[in-house]
Amino acid sequence: MVEQIKYSIGVDLGGTNIKLGIVTNTGKIIKKISVDTKAEGGSKVVISQIKYGIDLLLKGNKYKIQGIGIGSPGVVSMDKGTVENPPNLPGWKKVFLRKELEKITNTKVVVENDANAAAIGELIYGAGKKLKSFVMITLGTGVGGGLIINRKLYRGDTGAGGEIGHIVIDLHGKKCNCGNTGCVEAYLGNGYLINAVKEELPNYPDSKINKLINNDTENLTPKVISEAVQLNDKYANEIVKNMGENLGAALATVSNILDITNFVIGGGVSGFGKPLFDATSNATKRRVLASLSKYIKIIPAKLKNEAGIQGAAALVYYLQ
Amino acid sequence: MVEQIKYSIGVDLGGTNIKLGIVTNTGKIIKKISVDTKAEGGSKVVISQIKYGIDLLLKGNKYKIQGIGIGSPGVVSMDKGTVENPPNLPGWKKVFLRKELEKITNTKVVVENDANAAAIGELIYGAGKKLKSFVMITLGTGVGGGLIINRKLYRGDTGAGGEIGHIVIDLHGKKCNCGNTGCVEAYLGNGYLINAVKEELPNYPDSKINKLINNDTENLTPKVISEAVQLNDKYANEIVKNMGENLGAALATVSNILDITNFVIGGGVSGFGKPLFDATSNATKRRVLASLSKYIKIIPAKLKNEAGIQGAAALVYYLQ
Repeated sequence: MVEQIKYSIGVDLGGTNIKLGIVTNTGKIIKKISVDTKAEGGSKVVISQIKYGIDLLLKGNKYKIQGIGIGSPGVVSMDKGTVENPPNLPGWKKVFLRKELEKITNTKVVVENDANAAAIGELIYGAGKKLKSFVMITLGTGVGGGLIINRKLYRGDTGAGGEIGHIVIDLHGKKCNCGNTGCVEAYLGNGYLINAVKEELPNYPDSKINKLINNDTENLTPKVISEAVQLNDKYANEIVKNMGENLGAALATVSNILDITNFVIGGGVSGFGKPLFDATSNATKRRVLASLSKYIKIIPAKLKNEAGIQGAAALVYYLQ
Repeated sequence: MVEQIKYSIGVDLGGTNIKLGIVTNTGKIIKKISVDTKAEGGSKVVISQIKYGIDLLLKGNKYKIQGIGIGSPGVVSMDKGTVENPPNLPGWKKVFLRKELEKITNTKVVVENDANAAAIGELIYGAGKKLKSFVMITLGTGVGGGLIINRKLYRGDTGAGGEIGHIVIDLHGKKCNCGNTGCVEAYLGNGYLINAVKEELPNYPDSKINKLINNDTENLTPKVISEAVQLNDKYANEIVKNMGENLGAALATVSNILDITNFVIGGGVSGFGKPLFDATSNATKRRVLASLSKYIKIIPAKLKNEAGIQGAAALVYYLQ
């Protein structure tokens, strides 16, 4: 008997881009596109960008679509289909995303926190396929998280569970967009990271980063820093070591609270590769309670940049 | 029909004292005593102190004892009855506490993390009686925690769940006994707190604390600081405000990870009362994600100093 292939749309709603894909129920992306989020325009503009992306994606589509899964930043209530206070989408407060999208698409919509959706993707198709419990961490514009406990997504009462990015690692530290100080996101989120390097770079005139950006800090990206690490640049190595130290402090906290020792790391900044994973692993093992240290495993996400789309698409199949 | 009253022994194993009580299945303590832990003697001495305490407690006892519940520091495996690396009991590493105690008492023994046991006490008889989910925090020699999620104790795979004291609040901060730096316990644990005040006190010659301790820092205790707060001493107020700030950073982290907003605080240091609860509540509400802030509740434990005994005794009835 041949199992019937099903199709759904996965929408990965980011602060900068919206990535959309048609995805099979085995996790294969058969078509994908990306459109600007236009976040500065507020929720109405962003929602019309999602609609625009879906229309673009479905041009010439011949498959039956089971539904649309959205991975959104912020606090999401899956039951109500609402998104509250997404830190990187200004002016949202509380938006009834599911209702508004169902109205304009005439299709079933499922909304979940973007990091939770990525975790679902890893759980079903990826690095978490064989793990009982793990914490998914997505390093990008923000730092997202998703908790998988006993093969189930932990949402908490209001759906705010797993906000790993807002673990405080230095209570007197850097200001975070969420209003708190010293959140791990304020150190590892793309924008924060680049701003910190911009400030520090003048102190490292010999760093190879200067040449890579033609001495113009406007060219600074995580990718450039990653390239400098591959050239064994001393300052770039230090940046990544600090990132690992900061992330490791947050992961040790999670382990000590939840007794979970598997961490799957995905998202753009995880492109720093082995140096970041080693630094994070060392810091976490050193900081966590002795009885847990030997179990700590920091592993790269398997679904890479498509985890968001795949996880969002999986919501349609796995969470209803 | 009259329900039969049952009796068990609750043992609250602390770094300084072992508190023992005969407790009814409704949580009433009918007899209690306290003996020295003699922690510096290592596990064999501590175990013989527990036995000595039990014998003392049972002198003249006429009730049938259902079992002995032990609330122990460190990472406890309830299944194996083991205690690993209790930070305030030197030289333990891994001790088969249940087995050793059952051998010398001929009675059923249940071992659980002391903070988990206190949480069970609050869940059954105390401040958590009507809460769906809450985090129990015990402020004493160390800072313990217990997670109650959907009316059940969350233990995690190895029983290390809920180690709230080892949440990192300042990754470059104070050294903690666990080997990590910046754990919240390194700021609020009795010994750490007193040491910090000893160091700072010379900078506050006008503080009323100096008079309360007859200018001898050896007389410094949390109780003295609490008395100074009641006298509206400026420095003492600052100490408690800082404690609340430190604890609030840790609780905001827990809320952001677990989407739990109820915190029950017990243990000796919680005797600072309203000023500490207010400072902790303010800091937590300010730091936590906006969508959770309005739900934050910091409430005092109901069982006060006897929570450890009552919770340990409850293990016999509720966890087997």
